[in-house]
Amino acid sequence: MASESGKLWGGRFVGTVDPIMEKFNSSIAYDRHLWEADVQGSKAYSRGLEKAGLLTKAEMDQILHGLDKVAEEWAQGTFKLNPNDEDIHTANERRLKELIGETAGKLHTGRSRNDQVVTDLRLWMRQNCSTLSALLCELIRTMVDRAEAERDVLFPGYTHLQRAQPIRWSHWILSGAIAGNPLGVDRELLRAELDFGAITLNSMDATSERDFVAEFLFWASLCMTHLSRMAEDLILYGTKEFSFVQLSDAYSTGSSLMPQKKNPDSLELIRSKAGRVFGRCAGLLMTLKGLPSTYNKDLQEDKEAVFEVSDTMSAVLQVATGVISTLQIHRENMGRALSPDMLATDLAYYLVRKGMPFRQAHEASGKAVFMAETKGVALNQLSLQELQTISPLFSGDVSHVWDYGHSVEQYQALGGTARSSVDWQIGQLRALLRAQQAESPPHPSPK
Amino acid sequence: MASESGKLWGGRFVGTVDPIMEKFNSSIAYDRHLWEADVQGSKAYSRGLEKAGLLTKAEMDQILHGLDKVAEEWAQGTFKLNPNDEDIHTANERRLKELIGETAGKLHTGRSRNDQVVTDLRLWMRQNCSTLSALLCELIRTMVDRAEAERDVLFPGYTHLQRAQPIRWSHWILSGAIAGNPLGVDRELLRAELDFGAITLNSMDATSERDFVAEFLFWASLCMTHLSRMAEDLILYGTKEFSFVQLSDAYSTGSSLMPQKKNPDSLELIRSKAGRVFGRCAGLLMTLKGLPSTYNKDLQEDKEAVFEVSDTMSAVLQVATGVISTLQIHRENMGRALSPDMLATDLAYYLVRKGMPFRQAHEASGKAVFMAETKGVALNQLSLQELQTISPLFSGDVSHVWDYGHSVEQYQALGGTARSSVDWQIGQLRALLRAQQAESPPHPSPK
Amino acid sequence: MASESGKLWGGRFVGTVDPIMEKFNSSIAYDRHLWEADVQGSKAYSRGLEKAGLLTKAEMDQILHGLDKVAEEWAQGTFKLNPNDEDIHTANERRLKELIGETAGKLHTGRSRNDQVVTDLRLWMRQNCSTLSALLCELIRTMVDRAEAERDVLFPGYTHLQRAQPIRWSHWILSGAIAGNPLGVDRELLRAELDFGAITLNSMDATSERDFVAEFLFWASLCMTHLSRMAEDLILYGTKEFSFVQLSDAYSTGSSLMPQKKNPDSLELIRSKAGRVFGRCAGLLMTLKGLPSTYNKDLQEDKEAVFEVSDTMSAVLQVATGVISTLQIHRENMGRALSPDMLATDLAYYLVRKGMPFRQAHEASGKAVFMAETKGVALNQLSLQELQTISPLFSGDVSHVWDYGHSVEQYQALGGTARSSVDWQIGQLRALLRAQQAESPPHPSPK
Amino acid sequence: MASESGKLWGGRFVGTVDPIMEKFNSSIAYDRHLWEADVQGSKAYSRGLEKAGLLTKAEMDQILHGLDKVAEEWAQGTFKLNPNDEDIHTANERRLKELIGETAGKLHTGRSRNDQVVTDLRLWMRQNCSTLSALLCELIRTMVDRAEAERDVLFPGYTHLQRAQPIRWSHWILSGAIAGNPLGVDRELLRAELDFGAITLNSMDATSERDFVAEFLFWASLCMTHLSRMAEDLILYGTKEFSFVQLSDAYSTGSSLMPQKKNPDSLELIRSKAGRVFGRCAGLLMTLKGLPSTYNKDLQEDKEAVFEVSDTMSAVLQVATGVISTLQIHRENMGRALSPDMLATDLAYYLVRKGMPFRQAHEASGKAVFMAETKGVALNQLSLQELQTISPLFSGDVSHVWDYGHSVEQYQALGGTARSSVDWQIGQLRALLRAQQAESPPHPSPK
Repeated sequence: MASESGKLWGGRFVGTVDPIMEKFNSSIAYDRHLWEADVQGSKAYSRGLEKAGLLTKAEMDQILHGLDKVAEEWAQGTFKLNPNDEDIHTANERRLKELIGETAGKLHTGRSRNDQVVTDLRLWMRQNCSTLSALLCELIRTMVDRAEAERDVLFPGYTHLQRAQPIRWSHWILSGAIAGNPLGVDRELLRAELDFGAITLNSMDATSERDFVAEFLFWASLCMTHLSRMAEDLILYGTKEFSFVQLSDAYSTGSSLMPQKKNPDSLELIRSKAGRVFGRCAGLLMTLKGLPSTYNKDLQEDKEAVFEVSDTMSAVLQVATGVISTLQIHRENMGRALSPDMLATDLAYYLVRKGMPFRQAHEASGKAVFMAETKGVALNQLSLQELQTISPLFSGDVSHVWDYGHSVEQYQALGGTARSSVDWQIGQLRALLRAQQAESPPHPSPK
Repeated sequence: MASESGKLWGGRFVGTVDPIMEKFNSSIAYDRHLWEADVQGSKAYSRGLEKAGLLTKAEMDQILHGLDKVAEEWAQGTFKLNPNDEDIHTANERRLKELIGETAGKLHTGRSRNDQVVTDLRLWMRQNCSTLSALLCELIRTMVDRAEAERDVLFPGYTHLQRAQPIRWSHWILSGAIAGNPLGVDRELLRAELDFGAITLNSMDATSERDFVAEFLFWASLCMTHLSRMAEDLILYGTKEFSFVQLSDAYSTGSSLMPQKKNPDSLELIRSKAGRVFGRCAGLLMTLKGLPSTYNKDLQEDKEAVFEVSDTMSAVLQVATGVISTLQIHRENMGRALSPDMLATDLAYYLVRKGMPFRQAHEASGKAVFMAETKGVALNQLSLQELQTISPLFSGDVSHVWDYGHSVEQYQALGGTARSSVDWQIGQLRALLRAQQAESPPHPSPK
Repeated sequence: MASESGKLWGGRFVGTVDPIMEKFNSSIAYDRHLWEADVQGSKAYSRGLEKAGLLTKAEMDQILHGLDKVAEEWAQGTFKLNPNDEDIHTANERRLKELIGETAGKLHTGRSRNDQVVTDLRLWMRQNCSTLSALLCELIRTMVDRAEAERDVLFPGYTHLQRAQPIRWSHWILSGAIAGNPLGVDRELLRAELDFGAITLNSMDATSERDFVAEFLFWASLCMTHLSRMAEDLILYGTKEFSFVQLSDAYSTGSSLMPQKKNPDSLELIRSKAGRVFGRCAGLLMTLKGLPSTYNKDLQEDKEAVFEVSDTMSAVLQVATGVISTLQIHRENMGRALSPDMLATDLAYYLVRKGMPFRQAHEASGKAVFMAETKGVALNQLSLQELQTISPLFSGDVSHVWDYGHSVEQYQALGGTARSSVDWQIGQLRALLRAQQAESPPHPSPK
Repeated sequence: MASESGKLWGGRFVGTVDPIMEKFNSSIAYDRHLWEADVQGSKAYSRGLEKAGLLTKAEMDQILHGLDKVAEEWAQGTFKLNPNDEDIHTANERRLKELIGETAGKLHTGRSRNDQVVTDLRLWMRQNCSTLSALLCELIRTMVDRAEAERDVLFPGYTHLQRAQPIRWSHWILSGAIAGNPLGVDRELLRAELDFGAITLNSMDATSERDFVAEFLFWASLCMTHLSRMAEDLILYGTKEFSFVQLSDAYSTGSSLMPQKKNPDSLELIRSKAGRVFGRCAGLLMTLKGLPSTYNKDLQEDKEAVFEVSDTMSAVLQVATGVISTLQIHRENMGRALSPDMLATDLAYYLVRKGMPFRQAHEASGKAVFMAETKGVALNQLSLQELQTISPLFSGDVSHVWDYGHSVEQYQALGGTARSSVDWQIGQLRALLRAQQAESPPHPSPK
């Protein structure tokens, strides 16, 4: 009869532990990222044990000192992993015991590895989100700086990728800066989760829920969706056909086959990463679905997702900052792309201001567009007489409609494309950046 | 030669508008949900036009009155859609014109349909999230009520679906109540989005971004993930093998084939809906990925997703409330499932309290478990002498360890399973519910 | 004391069955689509029962006749649903009993509703996939027809959205036709699943697995991904900046605000549906993940997904066919977009043919591109002397390089853009369409 | 004034190439997996160039020899990467040039890196799918072996996790083996894609479409979904409450806190990987959505997805094989879980065989279940008289119904749980395995 752990049928493995299982089970390959958080968490916990009378002052000091030594070894790259160190918690405790002896065994009193896992990950994310937030601010700051300097460049606004109305180039830049900024909200979310100001309400829930991971992954997915859209715009604006912008050589690559080409690889990669990041979010939610409550090993999937997404976000934000800060714009092409038919709405508003209901004015303007097309002339080349056959409300002052600068200046409502409105947006974003900086620790160095 | 809109090759359609395209393009089949929001938005907009001098007071009154008439027709089910009403905005404006004549044409001055779409959806979601929030509160209240009444029932806590330690039944219930409650955060998010207290910063971004939709869909996905896990637990607890709970007949169905069966269909459906809801979230993000900025028709996908998810959430929350409020628990079975080996950790803590480092105590307790297994007796049936062969620290007071009630009372830390801790959790949740209620409009009737 | 099914705490519902649960549980709202498949399946099953001696010949005839009557009522729209008809199977059996009495009760011998559900859905999908396949063929046929007629139009091929090399317009069309054609493979897949030629191997697996649904949803997702890319290309080619194509009015819509605009709504909707369809696929897989084996009510999610995706695919394929068949191309703009620098690779090949290794030739051609840029002239305006400063291998025959027609004719390898190669592709696709038609039932009428 | 590539505003980077961009753009970190495929592809290509007269015989030999040297260096771990080797193709060509000089430059004639990328990946996947297929066969073989040896063990079949009817344990095992086997279909799919027997029809489509990647990722997702369900069953069957199976120590781990526990980590990890794998599939489709045709750098996302999923599948299949081959079953517990109420359907069939329509028989059996419950006895303890109050058709031979072995033997239809049917399933799967082996190369060693 087969022994309890014996091989019954088939299978390739004989022995007490299947080495493939051991590797499958082990998380040390990626959770070593957590070494600092793990030491930090253990130091706090040993202080708690001392307060609760479960460690003497001397024991606590011994443990704290030992943990500092462990941290030092990691920092200097001298920490040696054993084959049996299946995760970072085991590794650090094993090493602590080698350094300070049996007292190390008291550190684990009353906490489980599941507690450690979740605490360490929260600590790591707190630090890491702070770094990402700083990188995001850097990107937004770069965009705001550009927007301020290039406020007077006009170019076509598009909807459905059809030329719609003239707008300021800065208006486009700021639409990206704002979109790239779920940062206020996100900080709120993560702060609530991570500053440990609040105590988790229920011990079963605490080791089991991964909302803070899911929310981080979703924040990253949404942020990447915005960046993918900004990248799409810039790829289009950089085509020969649009020729509005030119990517710096530092962010382009040549073709191995076609000598004349310069490809926007940086922007294409940014666009593509939206898929990867969202895939991680989708994967985690699928893993969580239908799990029994409390800890199940399935939850181990959280860490690689967080680490990979964090690395991706960090690279994307830095590359996007570089792209925006070195992008060349072609003002003349932008201006040349404006055409009188984009002022058809302004023409309708002209009639509205003369008292015509908008729906009629819209129709009248449409007739003018059609008339110009039929005659093969630009909309602004229709004579006053011709316009008056459409509506007697047209008079000499209609000529003011054809000034693009005048057109954009009409949109002075907050959020509009008038210069004052763009300045207001710049001011709002600068205030946000200042508030962000005030609240953050001094600029963390990117990893 | 083919005319501009003529059919060149193949294809089944001849004429000016392909009827399938018309249907494909039309959103009226689902955006009629927005009738109330659309009227509300137009009324506010006409007041704005009057303030800006673009409507006279008399015109505004005429429009407001007309819009009230439109709303009345919708409310009474007498509004008649025309075949040309491609969306709710067109339908309402068409009807307004029939009712009040040309003045209706002035209402659209300076706003585009894209503005209306996004404003209406935000208004609808504000109302709808309030309803969902009330339903979620009702579920949580039901859980808290049960938790309070059944505080003294003990049963096994599981990790990895293995019996771990004795816990209070209420502790399990509250872990679900807390998990089902991203509601504070969510309200915050949605309030920021929806109360229009803040002005959108950039007009391009305003019609183009759908963060408020994506965030709603993600909130729903995460909430459903939690509910799928609660459903999984209850399905397991209701099996013959566990027999901890019994679902009310009102939430079960019989088998068409096997007369003896009663299936937990309600819980299985709740579990399954996590997939559907998340699928909508995934679909929307994929639709958004890589879109050029500003409005593209692709954004029309947002509405059906929101409506379907909202309906699903509403049904799920109500069914879950019903399930929890009528669930029968089998106290004796719960008690019978407790076994002395679940107190092995307590046995280790006993030794810790006598001064042994936890790691050694854990090992000693493990030895006791092994000894009991080998002898074929329960852990608490080892004699004191037997225990003392493992450690001399064991003495007569070890008998206190074997009391389950005593065991759970050790976990008095906030969030633990001691009675005082469970009471504290109940108090916290009640406070949250009160705060929620204070802030909400009076309980909206579920649709 | 509360009764077994009584309400214990909270909750709004009192009674024997919660009406919200009943609605939540009921599938009749959407599975009525299956009426025909259900009758067809039941007729086959009653023949089986007769063969097995469980029905007499007379009973079988009675049942068959009754089922025909049921089908007739559905077909004529006179079938009346009862409030208790929770699904199509219950409804049909209930009605059968009303029509033929107690004999109806014998029909269910030895089969469960779970069997019926899965059989009906497979039958429905067999019919439906055949319809979709016909619509897909129609789209491909339209593309092939166009490709044949417009073989001589050249325009730029793009990689990274940068102009790369001249290609035939037909080459682009055919790349779409091929991509839109996982149809051979798919038919294979679905045939294997649906023709019932094979018996399901295991009864537990048969009611439990939904591979045929998942594979259908994935096929649709992949097909939509291809169509989203084709739509993206056409949206770009239709912008003012590219101006290569013009969408028929039948597939465009105007702007409510800007009179001059014509938006490619049809293409934007096609692009957007990739998200919706994939969302359904993602949702189903998430629902399946981690389910216990055999039937669980969670599986009920399959049907709405299949129905919705099938409707979407049907509309998308028809609209795409309409768009392609009525699309106007602007030959002159296409020709004008070709420029000599797109022949830089040809220039390198010229040198290769004179014996230079490709890497050196690529570099030499790159130098020529740079020289032309520096001098501000087109690449083909460099004099022979100038070229010879780069390589002595250049001689008078280099002038042949600058002929676009000559350039495309070089690519005669199968799959290339030479006329002969394009003709070969057309031939291959026509053969595929003929093979498809031969194997399919006569063109089913689209629903 | 800023130079063209100069930094305009903000940003941290100054110089010609941003090092973060370089790293972001580089794929060498993961595409080095492709070294063997890249050499293999280049060797074939150089033979093609010779045939086309673009290489002399001597040049070809020189290149082939050089490529063999490159391969040797990779195989021996002596290949040295340069900082400029951005991908495997560049690295190999650079090294070839160092080894054989300028002739190396001819190898790239007429092909682009985009061609190489896609060809290499297809070659790698052909090899890799073959390995995965062998591992899958090994798992299925193990399951079939077990099923054969344990054919006579009965235990409860479940639907909705409610005990339904007695089935053979082997019937459950085979349901998993079949579900884990989309392998026939998959081989078909991949063979069509990968054996290069067919020529890609269109050059634009060839570098642009990634159907073969998407289909591989979906195959893996669907396969993992099945394995997640098998894992879920085994986790449940291994709980204290079910106690049907016991996992070998080789695939379990202990608790750091609770000495008495043994957790099914292997199965939980298998269950969790369904999310990860599907996440990769979702991510790729999202990346593909809406991309312009032909090559875009976004497509670079395909490789990491394929490599990671392939590694995951390889580990999962091996661990699953190990788990199944060492799993201990508890026959007595399985038998003890059978109860007479699970024969209620058989009781109905008893009446059907006596001539009662099934619907009535179902009702009669339901009454018997209710009567037994009311009297507090097992269903088989109702006396004949008691049964006859329900239906006069009951007579002495009803006692045969209560034999579980007799019950399962009724299901002799193909796919059923009778011994003959289970044997037939075993035979079918063995035949499939043999067919698979005949067609595959000899068992590839797992990486």
